[in-house]
Amino acid sequence: MQHPTYMGALDAWRPRTPHYQQFTWDFEDKGFLSAADRAKFIYTVPNYSNPTGVLVGQQDRRALLALVREKRIWLVEDDPYSCMQLDGNSGPSILALDAADRNEDIYSGPVIYLGTLSKSLAPGFRVGWVVGNPEVIRALTLAKQCTDMTGSMFSQAVALELIEQKVESQMIDGLLSTYRERRNALCAALSTHLGDWFEWEIPSGGMFVWLKAKRADLDTTRLYRVAIEHNVMFCPGSAFDHAGKMHTTMRLNFTRSAPDVLEEGVRRLARALEDSLSKLASGSSRLAVQ
Amino acid sequence: MQHPTYMGALDAWRPRTPHYQQFTWDFEDKGFLSAADRAKFIYTVPNYSNPTGVLVGQQDRRALLALVREKRIWLVEDDPYSCMQLDGNSGPSILALDAADRNEDIYSGPVIYLGTLSKSLAPGFRVGWVVGNPEVIRALTLAKQCTDMTGSMFSQAVALELIEQKVESQMIDGLLSTYRERRNALCAALSTHLGDWFEWEIPSGGMFVWLKAKRADLDTTRLYRVAIEHNVMFCPGSAFDHAGKMHTTMRLNFTRSAPDVLEEGVRRLARALEDSLSKLASGSSRLAVQ
Repeated sequence: MQHPTYMGALDAWRPRTPHYQQFTWDFEDKGFLSAADRAKFIYTVPNYSNPTGVLVGQQDRRALLALVREKRIWLVEDDPYSCMQLDGNSGPSILALDAADRNEDIYSGPVIYLGTLSKSLAPGFRVGWVVGNPEVIRALTLAKQCTDMTGSMFSQAVALELIEQKVESQMIDGLLSTYRERRNALCAALSTHLGDWFEWEIPSGGMFVWLKAKRADLDTTRLYRVAIEHNVMFCPGSAFDHAGKMHTTMRLNFTRSAPDVLEEGVRRLARALEDSLSKLASGSSRLAVQ
Repeated sequence: MQHPTYMGALDAWRPRTPHYQQFTWDFEDKGFLSAADRAKFIYTVPNYSNPTGVLVGQQDRRALLALVREKRIWLVEDDPYSCMQLDGNSGPSILALDAADRNEDIYSGPVIYLGTLSKSLAPGFRVGWVVGNPEVIRALTLAKQCTDMTGSMFSQAVALELIEQKVESQMIDGLLSTYRERRNALCAALSTHLGDWFEWEIPSGGMFVWLKAKRADLDTTRLYRVAIEHNVMFCPGSAFDHAGKMHTTMRLNFTRSAPDVLEEGVRRLARALEDSLSKLASGSSRLAVQ
């Protein structure tokens, strides 16, 4: 499992009480390779991952593909953000790499590719798709049928009409332009107000900036409580860790709010941090910095 | 569990490999009462049940309610067909009976009531609801979130608009009139063509007629294969039995097809039955009647 990981995926797996093994694209790692031998599947979000915004390069994609081919395990490629390329181009999906090598009429490889209309057309349709080999599709179809019979046919029909009318493709440039402006506004505000405390990389796509505290004792789960008092919210990094750790990280979303709202949010976050620090100095029991 | 049972419910429960105990509204039955002590919940479709079309009377509803109160177990009241009353009135749901006794601002009883728009407005919306006490709703909300985050908000918004514009209530009389005509056509055709072989009750609502073979050796699962050759389909009773038995029963739907199509379907079914009987007489290995 790519780590940290989308919390919705962790939620979906939780009832099965899985054993997790995180990986960091270092495929020489003995612990990971040994875990891969026993794994049911590997999970990755190569494009602008939630929560980190990381883009996985083509070389790492090929290395992961080689690994799952060798180990004969499934690779779940979750790809909601492929349409959200703000700078440059993310290149082919792992599915596309595998399919190009195979050159089959019907794909029979190990990649189970997940797509969605949620980031382009509308999240409210709840329409997505899976590409995988027929064995996988049959199993998923049965599981879906036993879960909810089917998703909304009405949503699917309307979404299909919108795609065929090219509404989705006409929307995407405007969306990306808006999101690019918001990302830039957020990152600029972060540099102004929080550069002393956190570090981050400017994401080349997706919806999120991932902040890492420079101080190991800056606890974002505690900061979160203080931030709420200052009328600003963020997602503490611990939500994306199957072990509930990563307490020095946080995820900020830049797609939902206009630039001035993002700037005000960062100002409030900076005040929340100052508040936490002064409480620390005065010995209060409620601390963001321990 | 009311028996036979909706196959979608059986499908939903199958992954949990449950133990089933059927009941027949005889609450003196020792085996059932003993099973109820260990049950997680009781499942019932009191209005025009799928597959039998049976309407559970008010006295039986009260008896079941008394039982779950005494045993302190959940009662899942699945009620998709309450809007499909063709003759007479089904009376209050078990939820309504319990809520009337309790007279609470927030319902805290043992009934978990399931409703849907699928039989009135449109199945394609996939919009339904649950009424239950807050403890149940919290658990279901979490389970739903971990399964698919949420149903289609677009479908829900459109459905709400249609309800508020009274489209649902304006549709229902026309629907019921159409369905009544179809039920009558199906039952008349059955009397003409299959009265020697099957018995049934004319359902006072819902979507189905439940046929029971008069001969114990008339196997509807085998008849089904012959019927397909005659270009007619039905649902063998075994699909509604958790043990896959009930081989002398079948479910016929009357809401989907126009009267002339239903009549032609019954004629084909009668020919398929004759075909099976003649194959039996000639010693063929492919038999509907063993």
